Amino acid sequence: MDRPNLCIAHSGGVTAILNTTAAATIRCARESQQFGTIYAAEFGLNGLVSGRLFDTTSLTDAHLTQLSQTPSSAFGSCRFKLPDYAADPKPYQQIMQTCADFNIQYLVYQGGNDSQDTTLKLSAAQSHFAHPLAVLGLPKTIDNDLEGTDFCPGYPSAAKYIAASIQEAALDTWAMSKNSTQVFILEVMGRHTGWLALASGIAREHVAQAPHSILIPEQSFCEQTWLEYVKHCVATYGHCVVVASEGITDAKGHAIVAQSRTDAFGHQQLGGVGAHLANLVSSKAGLKAHWALPDYLQRSAGHLRSATDVACAEQLGSSAVDALLSGQKGVMLALCRQQGSDAPSWTVSTIDLSRCANLEKTCPDGFIDTTTSMLSASARDYLRPLICGEHYPAYDRGVIDYFDRHVLQLVQQSEVTEHFV
Amino acid sequence: MDRPNLCIAHSGGVTAILNTTAAATIRCARESQQFGTIYAAEFGLNGLVSGRLFDTTSLTDAHLTQLSQTPSSAFGSCRFKLPDYAADPKPYQQIMQTCADFNIQYLVYQGGNDSQDTTLKLSAAQSHFAHPLAVLGLPKTIDNDLEGTDFCPGYPSAAKYIAASIQEAALDTWAMSKNSTQVFILEVMGRHTGWLALASGIAREHVAQAPHSILIPEQSFCEQTWLEYVKHCVATYGHCVVVASEGITDAKGHAIVAQSRTDAFGHQQLGGVGAHLANLVSSKAGLKAHWALPDYLQRSAGHLRSATDVACAEQLGSSAVDALLSGQKGVMLALCRQQGSDAPSWTVSTIDLSRCANLEKTCPDGFIDTTTSMLSASARDYLRPLICGEHYPAYDRGVIDYFDRHVLQLVQQSEVTEHFV
Repeated sequence: MDRPNLCIAHSGGVTAILNTTAAATIRCARESQQFGTIYAAEFGLNGLVSGRLFDTTSLTDAHLTQLSQTPSSAFGSCRFKLPDYAADPKPYQQIMQTCADFNIQYLVYQGGNDSQDTTLKLSAAQSHFAHPLAVLGLPKTIDNDLEGTDFCPGYPSAAKYIAASIQEAALDTWAMSKNSTQVFILEVMGRHTGWLALASGIAREHVAQAPHSILIPEQSFCEQTWLEYVKHCVATYGHCVVVASEGITDAKGHAIVAQSRTDAFGHQQLGGVGAHLANLVSSKAGLKAHWALPDYLQRSAGHLRSATDVACAEQLGSSAVDALLSGQKGVMLALCRQQGSDAPSWTVSTIDLSRCANLEKTCPDGFIDTTTSMLSASARDYLRPLICGEHYPAYDRGVIDYFDRHVLQLVQQSEVTEHFV
Repeated sequence: MDRPNLCIAHSGGVTAILNTTAAATIRCARESQQFGTIYAAEFGLNGLVSGRLFDTTSLTDAHLTQLSQTPSSAFGSCRFKLPDYAADPKPYQQIMQTCADFNIQYLVYQGGNDSQDTTLKLSAAQSHFAHPLAVLGLPKTIDNDLEGTDFCPGYPSAAKYIAASIQEAALDTWAMSKNSTQVFILEVMGRHTGWLALASGIAREHVAQAPHSILIPEQSFCEQTWLEYVKHCVATYGHCVVVASEGITDAKGHAIVAQSRTDAFGHQQLGGVGAHLANLVSSKAGLKAHWALPDYLQRSAGHLRSATDVACAEQLGSSAVDALLSGQKGVMLALCRQQGSDAPSWTVSTIDLSRCANLEKTCPDGFIDTTTSMLSASARDYLRPLICGEHYPAYDRGVIDYFDRHVLQLVQQSEVTEHFV
C-alpha cells in the first residue's frame, strides 16, 4: 500500500520498439511486487509538468502483449528541453510536485542524446527537493547516434525496414529502366549521422548491385562527382539506386537542399534532399528519376521489426526494473555486444549520463567506401546481427491489431492531489 | 520437340505479385507438357521487338518458389505504346519475326489498361501474319482501375501496405503532436483514381480515428474547406492524418500541385502533392506538418503482401495456361468475386479486350464521405477481403531472399535464328 510508485516517460522521436520496452518494464515491475502503481507520463515530460499521467494498473496481460508489438509511443512523447535549473527552476518544481503528489520515486526516461540531457539535469536537481526520485535513462533512437551503447533500440527495426525497402525499390527501378525511370533516390532520416543510410547497403555484395550510391552526412557531397557516378552506373548497369541521408552537406558544410529549394510561398521545403537530387539527375544528367521519402514510415514500421531489436528492447525493460531495485540512478542503461562463436548477444550495463547526453556518435571512417559506397567488412559485421530475425504483429482481418491507447486510464494531478498529499 | 513455345511479357508499372503469376504460369505450362520452351521477354515488348528473351528452362522448383515471392518483374517491364498497325507496321513485324524465330505461338501479356491496348492491337494484327500467335491478356495494376475485373492483382498488396503504413504513421503523429508535428500527409499513387488512397481508411471506425482526411481524384479539392477541416481535426483530436492521391485536382480540374511548384531550375517537381499540402498546412494553418512519399516502395512491398492477392495471382497464372490450351485468345482474364457465406472467393473468367483496354474504373460515388472521409459500408465490404491474410517472404540473416535475375539465361534472336528459321 505504501510501496513507492514508478513512472515511465518517453522523449524524442518515437520508434518501433519504445512500447516494447515499456510493456516489459510494466510486467517486470509488477512481478517484483516492489512498486505500487506504475504510471506512464502523457507526452513524456509534458505529463510530468502538468500532472497528467496514465495509470497502467488496468492493463491486462493481453493489453501488454498488444502494447509490446505496437510502434510509436502509446503514452505520447515530447520535444522538451529542460532549462538549466539555475536559470529557471519552475519546470523542475512542477515535475517534482507531480512526483510527490503521485508518490513517484522512480522515473524511467527513455530517449536519445538530447533526452539524456533531461535525465542528467533531473538527476542533478534532486538535491533541491525533499521528495526522493531515482531517475534512470534508457537509450532509444532510430538515428543510432547515442554514445556508450552498442546500438540504440529502434535503430535495428528502422534499419531493417530501409534494407528491405531498398531491395524492393531496386527491383522496381531495374524493371522500369528500359523505357522509364533509370534512377531512384531514397531519402532517409539522419541529420548528422548516416547510420540509417548505411543499413541500405547490407545486402549489396558487389558494385553492380543496388544501392549504388549511399550519401551520408559524414562524407561531403560533391555534385559533379556524384552526377558522373550516377551516369556511370546507368551506363554500366542500366539503372542507379541512391540512398541519401536528409542531412548531407557539401565540403563547406552547407546543406545540399536548403540553398535552392523554397516553395511558391517562400517557405523552405520540408525534407528536400530526395527531390533536389532527383531534379539534379533529370536536369543535369538527362535521366528520369523517381524518389521516395518514407519519413515517419521508417521509424514506426511495426509491421516488420528486427527480432534482435525486439529482444533487446524487452531486455532493457526488465533490466531497468532490476537496476532501480538495486539502487541505480542518474545513469543510462546501455547494450554491450558479446561476441559468441556463432552470433553475438547483448548484455545490459550502466554508463554515466555525461558519457552520452548531448553527444553524437557518427559512422566510423571507412564504413562506406567514398567512391563505390560499398560497406566495409566491419560495417557488415556491425550491422548484420542487428537486423537479424523478423518480428511480425498480429492482424485482424487484414489490419494490424495494434494497441488502442484509448483503453489507458488518464489520471490528473488535480483529481488525485488530495489523496496523496 | 515440335511443341509450340510460350512467352510471358510484362507491361506498365510493376507490382508485388507479377512474378507470382509468372511463376505459376511457368509451373502449370511445364506440368501440362503441351508447350516447348517457356520464354519471358526482356523488358516486355522491348524484348519481343529486339529478340531478347529469357529462357526459363533452367529455373528449378526452388527458383520458381523464390521468383514467386519476389516483387517487381524479374524479366523487366515496359512503357511501350504500339502505334496503329496501319500507321506503322514495323514493330508488329519485328515482334512477329521474334515469335516465328523462337516458334512462340502463345503470348501471355500482363498489364494495366494501356497495356491491354497492346494485347488488343497485337491480336487484331494477327491476320497480317502467317505465324500463328494466340495473345492472352492478364490484368495487373496497383491502381485497380481496370474495368471488367473485380480487382487488379497487385492492388491488394499495395493497399495492404498503405493501410498498415497509415496505421503506423498515425500512431507516430499522435505521439509527437504535443510539442512537434500535428499534421501528417501521405502522398500515394493514383493519377486519376483514388483506389489506393481509399485503402488507407479501412481500419477507421469513427471520425476521431486516422486517417482523418482522404483526398482522391474523383472528388475535387477545395483548399479553404480542407484547411478548415484540418484545423478542426487538430483542435478536436490533437492531430490530423491525411492521405492524398497524387492526382487530386481542384473544381476546375487543375492539378493541385502543378501550378505552384517548380524547383530552382525551373523544373516541375516530381510528385508534389504531399509537399504542397504540407506547405499549405504550415503557411496557412500555422501547424507543423510532416509528409511522406512512398513512391515505388508502395507497389513493390514484397515484405508484406496480401494473401488474397498472392492466391489470386497464382490462380491467374494457372488459368492462363488452361485458357490458352482451351483455345482462348484475344481476351483478358478477369477475376470474379463469389460471395461465400463467410468470405468471398474468386473465379477466373474471360472478357473482351475492348471492355478493358484504355478504360479507367474510378471509385464509385459514395465510397468516401466528402466531408469526413469515412468509408461507406460498401467500400469496406469491397476492400476488406482483398487485404486479408499476410504473405511474408523468406529471409537470409535479416535480408530478404529475393530471386536473383542473374540466374536467368538470356537468349538473343541473332544467336538462335539459325536454329529456328
